[in-house]
Amino acid sequence: MKIAILGIGNVGTGVYQIVQENSKEIFRYLGSNIDVSKILVRTMNKDRKIPIEDGILTNDFNDILKDEEVKIVVELMGGIDPALEYIKKAISHGKHIVTANKAIMATHGKELEALANENGVFIKYEASVGGGIPIINTLMESLAANKIEEIIGIINGTTNYILTQMTSENLSFEEALKLAQDNGYAEANPTSDIEGEDAAFKISILTSIAYGLNVPANIIYREGITKIQKSDIEYTSELGYKIKLLAVSKKHEDFIEIYVHPALVPNNHPLASINNEFNALFVKGNAVGELLLCGKGAGSLPTGSAVLADILSVAKSIKNDIENNVAVHDIENCIEVKGMGKSQYYVRLQVIDEPGVLGNIAMTFGKYGISLESVVQKGRGEETVPLVFIAHDIEKEMLDKALEEVGGYEYVERVASILKVENV
Amino acid sequence: MKIAILGIGNVGTGVYQIVQENSKEIFRYLGSNIDVSKILVRTMNKDRKIPIEDGILTNDFNDILKDEEVKIVVELMGGIDPALEYIKKAISHGKHIVTANKAIMATHGKELEALANENGVFIKYEASVGGGIPIINTLMESLAANKIEEIIGIINGTTNYILTQMTSENLSFEEALKLAQDNGYAEANPTSDIEGEDAAFKISILTSIAYGLNVPANIIYREGITKIQKSDIEYTSELGYKIKLLAVSKKHEDFIEIYVHPALVPNNHPLASINNEFNALFVKGNAVGELLLCGKGAGSLPTGSAVLADILSVAKSIKNDIENNVAVHDIENCIEVKGMGKSQYYVRLQVIDEPGVLGNIAMTFGKYGISLESVVQKGRGEETVPLVFIAHDIEKEMLDKALEEVGGYEYVERVASILKVENV
Repeated sequence: MKIAILGIGNVGTGVYQIVQENSKEIFRYLGSNIDVSKILVRTMNKDRKIPIEDGILTNDFNDILKDEEVKIVVELMGGIDPALEYIKKAISHGKHIVTANKAIMATHGKELEALANENGVFIKYEASVGGGIPIINTLMESLAANKIEEIIGIINGTTNYILTQMTSENLSFEEALKLAQDNGYAEANPTSDIEGEDAAFKISILTSIAYGLNVPANIIYREGITKIQKSDIEYTSELGYKIKLLAVSKKHEDFIEIYVHPALVPNNHPLASINNEFNALFVKGNAVGELLLCGKGAGSLPTGSAVLADILSVAKSIKNDIENNVAVHDIENCIEVKGMGKSQYYVRLQVIDEPGVLGNIAMTFGKYGISLESVVQKGRGEETVPLVFIAHDIEKEMLDKALEEVGGYEYVERVASILKVENV
Repeated sequence: MKIAILGIGNVGTGVYQIVQENSKEIFRYLGSNIDVSKILVRTMNKDRKIPIEDGILTNDFNDILKDEEVKIVVELMGGIDPALEYIKKAISHGKHIVTANKAIMATHGKELEALANENGVFIKYEASVGGGIPIINTLMESLAANKIEEIIGIINGTTNYILTQMTSENLSFEEALKLAQDNGYAEANPTSDIEGEDAAFKISILTSIAYGLNVPANIIYREGITKIQKSDIEYTSELGYKIKLLAVSKKHEDFIEIYVHPALVPNNHPLASINNEFNALFVKGNAVGELLLCGKGAGSLPTGSAVLADILSVAKSIKNDIENNVAVHDIENCIEVKGMGKSQYYVRLQVIDEPGVLGNIAMTFGKYGISLESVVQKGRGEETVPLVFIAHDIEKEMLDKALEEVGGYEYVERVASILKVENV
């Protein structure tokens, strides 16, 4: 079974390596071998992390397109351009697609799946979400007879690494980001990860699979982790929570609640113990109940494992002469999309330390129907001190109104932080 | 797509219910409906938990066998007899099999898979291990390109419920078992669960899938939870551990380590927080790294969800005209099988409280090369007192020798408990 890989970076290297090292397991599954017969690269002469067989590198995509023996094109370049064009061309030439590209699947997935169907080929993308965790196959196959009700995930390894290091090593965001970059867990330009865009892509993909609803990533409410301060980590930890960047998608009767945000997770919840580069997906279905999948969310071999699973599945279908001829059941365009609803919230104010401040603020909250579960005040003696609340269930809009009023008081320097408590 | 169900107990009811309630999701996956056209029962007139369509109950298996329209037979009777005979007959009549029967798959799986292959039909058994957790599909499909290195699981809901209740409610084993029976988590005859047989069946099934090795359940070393005392729960908890019934299967170069036993799991390990009827499977593959799957390990709907996944997968294959014609890659008969190897151990002795006892026992341990990580001695004033150790890594045989000597001392009443620490 001949395949071509586009791009031999981190994941591409992993795939190539697994094909060589686990050939016995691959043969056991497929009854034949996988032969990487072409690899598309930008630069032909360059040191690679692993030795690559002579003569299979090419810098001309047409070499791959025209090779009739190449049945599966494995796109691991990342980014939209030129990967999207290559995928489309490969499909039109009757080649099956395996990709790890969440940006493309989140923004052009519907179009590509339709195109693949027209051409009788498969397009598979397990590795686009959750690295080695088989979340897409689980949603598509194992939970096929469930009404999925919600998905809550830690699906960005970079931010989880940063938040874990901030917590365990008492680092600032900037220090932890630097550490993540030094250790290869964050890119030189980390914007997409730390601003929650990457997680928004992924939860958009999972939402379309789980509910058959198309929610484009760019309309998903998102908040990154750049504003999280050391003191937030400290106070939430004292109150019995961990801060995690969560991607949340909940299906309600006639709307869908979907957002990406740094949230407070109670210490005793399994998601609270998912650390560093690990990812976790918490899925609720009306038959299966609660299901939790955890594993490495990134990295050469874990992501390569997911890519190989797709390659093997497609290869088996090819051997069995199955075309992707199942009628596409149109993904509906999304019903109403809402951001964060009623919830507990963590609020950190920076206030001048004088008598009556706490009382006045609590009174204002009361006026807006907000009752407080916990209050922490510390650091007396300094000019301004942090005042930390956890508010009982309240609509975000109401909280915003109360905080607007509170923020206007002369003894309130600023509203420093608002974080949702995720009561999963 | 017509199917027949054998047995309409707990799981059968769940399957029937899901087929009715989630018909929209089933149609979305399959492009057609699942029609339960026959259900085999022992007694025709009996109150059922849910309303069942008229005319589909039968007490004659031949009705199902002879019905050419029934393509899939779903065996949910449990036990070997007559389920095994029915499965064989159904296969010989060209019907596909979906079963939740771990006893049959652990003892006759190889034979049935060969028979199914000869007859070009599928036999699927996701629901036989881990209830709603898609562990079998994950091992077979998603991790197909991995060398699996180990599987450690909490795969018996009854014992996990009992151990959880003993821990959280400070109950004795007998009290917790009674509670489990009252709440439907344990059967009237709980032997197979509490003696670890059920878990041994399941780890045997997973071992054959993961490594292609046939390890019959009856040669697997197993220890149940009947000897766990309240005091063991107490001491281990003080030392930072939870007691869990673990099924362990580790592949080494030329032998396989496989056993079922109540083990100490460190509190900060994810398996320590799997409580009550939840199950969890921890899998290590050479590409994917560590993967953890948790969910409800039993119950009508969760197990039904897994049965439906198999039904849908087979139904799709039927629609696509795929025969199960992949050559069976013979499962090797197992290489050497070993029980528990070198490890830390928890030991509880009951000793007479007099000076020098601890010193003498520690000296004897030292003679056998056993060094101690922690020692707890409590309850002064009573006639005999518990003396609890955690020993550093040591071969079980060496520990047994040391304990034989120690057990002979006049001030040692008895060796009350030996539990392995599972350093996962």
